[in-house]
Amino acid sequence: MVNTGVISSSGNLMDFLDEPFPDVGTYEDFHTIDWLREKSRDTDRHRKITSKSKESIWEFIKSLLDAWSGWAVMLLIGLLAGTLAGVIDLAVDWMTDLKEGICLSAFWYSHEQCCWTSNETTFEDRDKCPLWQKWSELLVNQSEICLFWTFLGASAYILNYLMYILWALLFAFLAVSLVRVFAPYACGSGIPEIKTILSGFIIRGYLGKWTLLIKTVTLVLVVSSGLSLGKEGPLVHVACCCGNFFSSLFSKYSKNEGKRREVLSAAAAAGVSVAFGAPIGGVLFSLEEVSYYFPLKTLWRSFFAALVAAFTLRSINPFGNSRLVLFYVEYHTPWYMAELFPFILLGVFGGLWGTLFIRCNIAWCRRRKTTKLGKYPVLEVIAVTAITAIVAYPNPYTRRSTSELISELFNDCGALESSQLCDYINDPNMTRPVDDIPDRPAGVGVYTAIWQLALALIFKIIITIFTFGMKIPSGLFIPSMAVGAMAGRMVGIGVEQLAYHHHDWIIFRNWCRPGADCVTPGLYAMVGAAACLGGVTRMTVSLVVIMFELTGGLEYIVPLMAAAVTSKWVADAFGKEGIYEAHIHLNGYPFLDVKDEFTHRTLATDVMRPRRGEPPLSVLTQDSMTVEDVETLIKETDYNGFPVVVSRDSERLIGFAQRRELILAIKNARQRQEGIVSDSVMYFTEEPPELPANSPQPLKLRRVLNLSPFTVTDHTPMETVVDIFRKLGLRQCLVTRSGRLLGIITKKDVLRHMAQMANQDPESIMFN
Amino acid sequence: MVNTGVISSSGNLMDFLDEPFPDVGTYEDFHTIDWLREKSRDTDRHRKITSKSKESIWEFIKSLLDAWSGWAVMLLIGLLAGTLAGVIDLAVDWMTDLKEGICLSAFWYSHEQCCWTSNETTFEDRDKCPLWQKWSELLVNQSEICLFWTFLGASAYILNYLMYILWALLFAFLAVSLVRVFAPYACGSGIPEIKTILSGFIIRGYLGKWTLLIKTVTLVLVVSSGLSLGKEGPLVHVACCCGNFFSSLFSKYSKNEGKRREVLSAAAAAGVSVAFGAPIGGVLFSLEEVSYYFPLKTLWRSFFAALVAAFTLRSINPFGNSRLVLFYVEYHTPWYMAELFPFILLGVFGGLWGTLFIRCNIAWCRRRKTTKLGKYPVLEVIAVTAITAIVAYPNPYTRRSTSELISELFNDCGALESSQLCDYINDPNMTRPVDDIPDRPAGVGVYTAIWQLALALIFKIIITIFTFGMKIPSGLFIPSMAVGAMAGRMVGIGVEQLAYHHHDWIIFRNWCRPGADCVTPGLYAMVGAAACLGGVTRMTVSLVVIMFELTGGLEYIVPLMAAAVTSKWVADAFGKEGIYEAHIHLNGYPFLDVKDEFTHRTLATDVMRPRRGEPPLSVLTQDSMTVEDVETLIKETDYNGFPVVVSRDSERLIGFAQRRELILAIKNARQRQEGIVSDSVMYFTEEPPELPANSPQPLKLRRVLNLSPFTVTDHTPMETVVDIFRKLGLRQCLVTRSGRLLGIITKKDVLRHMAQMANQDPESIMFN
Repeated sequence: MVNTGVISSSGNLMDFLDEPFPDVGTYEDFHTIDWLREKSRDTDRHRKITSKSKESIWEFIKSLLDAWSGWAVMLLIGLLAGTLAGVIDLAVDWMTDLKEGICLSAFWYSHEQCCWTSNETTFEDRDKCPLWQKWSELLVNQSEICLFWTFLGASAYILNYLMYILWALLFAFLAVSLVRVFAPYACGSGIPEIKTILSGFIIRGYLGKWTLLIKTVTLVLVVSSGLSLGKEGPLVHVACCCGNFFSSLFSKYSKNEGKRREVLSAAAAAGVSVAFGAPIGGVLFSLEEVSYYFPLKTLWRSFFAALVAAFTLRSINPFGNSRLVLFYVEYHTPWYMAELFPFILLGVFGGLWGTLFIRCNIAWCRRRKTTKLGKYPVLEVIAVTAITAIVAYPNPYTRRSTSELISELFNDCGALESSQLCDYINDPNMTRPVDDIPDRPAGVGVYTAIWQLALALIFKIIITIFTFGMKIPSGLFIPSMAVGAMAGRMVGIGVEQLAYHHHDWIIFRNWCRPGADCVTPGLYAMVGAAACLGGVTRMTVSLVVIMFELTGGLEYIVPLMAAAVTSKWVADAFGKEGIYEAHIHLNGYPFLDVKDEFTHRTLATDVMRPRRGEPPLSVLTQDSMTVEDVETLIKETDYNGFPVVVSRDSERLIGFAQRRELILAIKNARQRQEGIVSDSVMYFTEEPPELPANSPQPLKLRRVLNLSPFTVTDHTPMETVVDIFRKLGLRQCLVTRSGRLLGIITKKDVLRHMAQMANQDPESIMFN
Repeated sequence: MVNTGVISSSGNLMDFLDEPFPDVGTYEDFHTIDWLREKSRDTDRHRKITSKSKESIWEFIKSLLDAWSGWAVMLLIGLLAGTLAGVIDLAVDWMTDLKEGICLSAFWYSHEQCCWTSNETTFEDRDKCPLWQKWSELLVNQSEICLFWTFLGASAYILNYLMYILWALLFAFLAVSLVRVFAPYACGSGIPEIKTILSGFIIRGYLGKWTLLIKTVTLVLVVSSGLSLGKEGPLVHVACCCGNFFSSLFSKYSKNEGKRREVLSAAAAAGVSVAFGAPIGGVLFSLEEVSYYFPLKTLWRSFFAALVAAFTLRSINPFGNSRLVLFYVEYHTPWYMAELFPFILLGVFGGLWGTLFIRCNIAWCRRRKTTKLGKYPVLEVIAVTAITAIVAYPNPYTRRSTSELISELFNDCGALESSQLCDYINDPNMTRPVDDIPDRPAGVGVYTAIWQLALALIFKIIITIFTFGMKIPSGLFIPSMAVGAMAGRMVGIGVEQLAYHHHDWIIFRNWCRPGADCVTPGLYAMVGAAACLGGVTRMTVSLVVIMFELTGGLEYIVPLMAAAVTSKWVADAFGKEGIYEAHIHLNGYPFLDVKDEFTHRTLATDVMRPRRGEPPLSVLTQDSMTVEDVETLIKETDYNGFPVVVSRDSERLIGFAQRRELILAIKNARQRQEGIVSDSVMYFTEEPPELPANSPQPLKLRRVLNLSPFTVTDHTPMETVVDIFRKLGLRQCLVTRSGRLLGIITKKDVLRHMAQMANQDPESIMFN
């Protein structure tokens, strides 16, 4: 009954009692949904439930259940997304360590868990607890079988190196094979496709159960393999798969593509929420970056889902520190106005890197699409993994997992820090509280660290371009943040040493006396990370909010914002598209971006089809075409629907009939209704037309006629038309002049026109 | 040139060169703007600047300045709003203390500032520093002139009491007089009106300079007078006035009502940002509660304005503690699952109070509007102030300013706390760190405090109903929060004592062992405040985010959310309207709420005018009416515009002409164009019609014709029509059937229909 909603609401109440034929109201794969129609169908459903609920207690309870099902779905999504994120975190932790060694007491323990109960007191000693065995130790010393290795004369280092590469290759091979065989949609970050789906496109199976399963498993594999990618984007995809799964359990969502997308928007928020432990940031990310139709009700529900997900993750506690966030930092000193200059410099770097990355990555992906390269995805993954592993192992900053690296770069150097980055020369006379350490001269370790960081930075910049877009799940957040954090930390150490050695310079004199803790290199790393992430994704508010939730203080919003704004401005100067939009365009999805401004001076008449010289528009008449005529028309054209006019002469529009529903209706009538033959006249009016006596029984098709098609006049400026398509989510719009039908504009026509205009000089259009 | 944008973009480029007549493109007071048209005009302006910018360096610089003016306006708004908020805070601080006494060293010091440099070490002693003199001390002891008082035999208490009342009356009288004389629009919270303005309504002067000035001054007066109101809502109004002022400096914003509203949305965010020190909460408040059209660009700019405002306020540092937020709290213990039950109870209380408050307040305001009461606003204010002051003084919890009260209620009891609420019986053997104090039995002070709080609660509940809506600036946030905080603190103390005395009960056994610090009454106060604020305003996400920014920890989001959700559900069960929507309806503003769902089964044909039996629609024909015909039509009707059809017979629509522009065009033509007389034929076509030889010169009016009027068919469901009006911001929409013009639907028709439907049973409409 739900399916006939639109049609019946269009005034012909008698038809309401007709039995609907199956499949009416669904969409084909790779087609665009009609938002207005979905909304109207949901209202009908709602109205029905409300009116029924007064009939009996049972119906009333059912109506309550229906009203609460939205919250139930959110709760379930939050629980599942949080659980999956926790499981992924734990598995990644274990498998990343597996590349280096194994725990003897229980092989499923990660390095940290293995040494948790160890008696050693300092952190460094604990890291070398006897229960945890590196592969070299295990293979060479413990087992006598491995004489093979000693025969090769391999030192422990080379053995570990080889094991590291082998494990990485194994993980990557498993991942790409699983994706190839079971779920091809599980590759990439998924965000471009989710943006497209949320804007109203249908990609069947993209959010299916197989994709969910395979993406979760392969995500663990690829992150563990040490490739230059992150799990944040794919987690959004995983959360959306959860959303799709749970919405299929409730008919309210499974039968309505519009309502389903509300659930998916909330699921995307839950995904970011668990990726970073930032529920508010997640909601804003969904609002700013991913979603298309985001009513206030969805805002509230997204928030709920994001919170449930974050708390589920926290109770799983994968980081073992009761912290919700991925990179928890706490700085002890404020920032100073003069530091804004390096922050803005980092913003410029972020913007430039964003532009460079997008250009190179898109060029490479286009190459992959168009040349032979794309035919060997497994080989490509293996090759990139091998290069990554070979280059990454010797450098301590690339060997470890990227999120650990970022975490170390963000951290302020405390007194107990054992990291190489904190190898400062301490003044032995100074006794101070642990947290508040003055600026000190850098030791040898710091200088070594800077060189290693510089090499790591160059490597990351290059390898990420080739990694993102391969046929494995791959997120961009973590590599972008790593690039920014490395650059930021280096700048931070530079400023710190400059301030220490030249504290008499005017710019330092006011705020950086000797013995003061005035520069925090970790903060620079964080600002750099925000700048690079902003340059790549062009996120703004959500980026700052995520970073704000990571630090938990309003104190550092200004530096973050300065860097984010600069980065966006610099990057926008070279091209408006973020990486997700660029991939959407590369893949040719019909995505009408809310952010693009259409400012050209064209009119609806310039865009509508038929163009000048083209054959006239295929239309149906309201009461003079036969079944055969229509079937021929359907066979000869591939339009999604046909306008219905009073007659070919008057061309006055009365409605619009969907191709899919016409086919179904005719098929249905031919099978079930007696007397319908090829010569039967089809009519869309209330009453059958007057026909000659011997003519066959006419076929009434008013039910498939949309009596309220959307029309604009031929003089309507295209910017208004674009606005209407965006805001109302139309599939097509009819063009009239003085009440006569002139043509049709579809979403694809609009997109094509916008692309044309973007490549053309605005002047030439204005006066052509 | 800007003004002719829409018309010229409709295809007739020749008219583009005509000189526009003045005032075209502006709106009359209390009229609704046409969003589509404003947008289109801005695009024209932008296009012009872009094309000009290639001509010369100067034009290029101008185009850059234009692009940056948006950020400049935001910066200015942030600076001014922050400064004003700081000044208001300082002035309120001083004047509130003025009611009790004066500083001898400098009369412009508040109590705290006066005793700042005092030598006394403890807080209590410092409060009694000799430089600060209560009125009784000053008048009775120090000056011998005041024998008058001693003659009355008044004790110091009564003297202080009288001074308190007198100052309160003086402040209130000044405030209401200023509002009455200089800026009647400065009364109330301003949020209902700002919502209406942002939705596209014109209220001239509402955001003017006088309103800004008077509202700022009177806000200080009324808050100092001790009335039960807050400064948060009015601060939003003040910030919007700043926004309006600065947008009038840039032609980009001053000449375009749509663009101006983008600035105002951001200004509203800045207002909340400084009211609470919560920039993210401010942006979300603007998005969720206030704004109508909120593109992503505005989101980002709002965030910028909110941050600048918050930092300006912080550098003024009115609270003297370097804290950005109004009520900074820090709790030391987590919450437990079992506590959710009292939190939800507080949510229920908040929802019930919200409903009660809205019902009573609206009833009282309606009474004020319809009876004699409304004619004596000054008397009303004086009376309410007198009652407030008389009742408030004896109770220490109502005597102080409401924000101080809330601050005290939110705070956790530390070891050094001198407040009556923290008068617990300490175990003398216990030595513990200052922050982590176990639950203790309540002392006499706590029991006294509970009684006083209960009385204060009842008083606040009653007096707030009568205060909100008087002819003075009055916000609701603070009184609502105070009601909730008082209720919450009482519940919190109750739970705490229950847990202390019955720690062997099953519910307490798991988490509340003796000697543990398990219940934080301050947290209950905060949850209660959120619940009550949510019940009154129906804010959801922004409420939780504001509260989250106040505490600075994700830890307490779940309790806050549980209370906010419960409160909203409970309140919504009694009526969907929040206080702002209720006041909008009370005042009859044409506000089309984005949140209201229209789910009725009516069609455009049921709503359009003319109704059955009414005279036909007043239309113009494209080339057969004379100037006199049109002038008569304009005189006899008061429609805002007229559809133009081919001829009265065919009724085929070609466009729409605005009344205002028709009048201006005819006036202009009669004055300047030769040969235009009453008998001249007016034509809207490209070419003049063929006329008899002796007829006067015809008048071409194509320029005032909108060639792309919005049309829907008569079968369009009203829910779609409502959606179109909301999303595209239309003023009117024409209704056609098969290309013939049938009628017109204006925004007011839509609102009227929605109100009708809301009062009717949906069943009766379905089958009538």
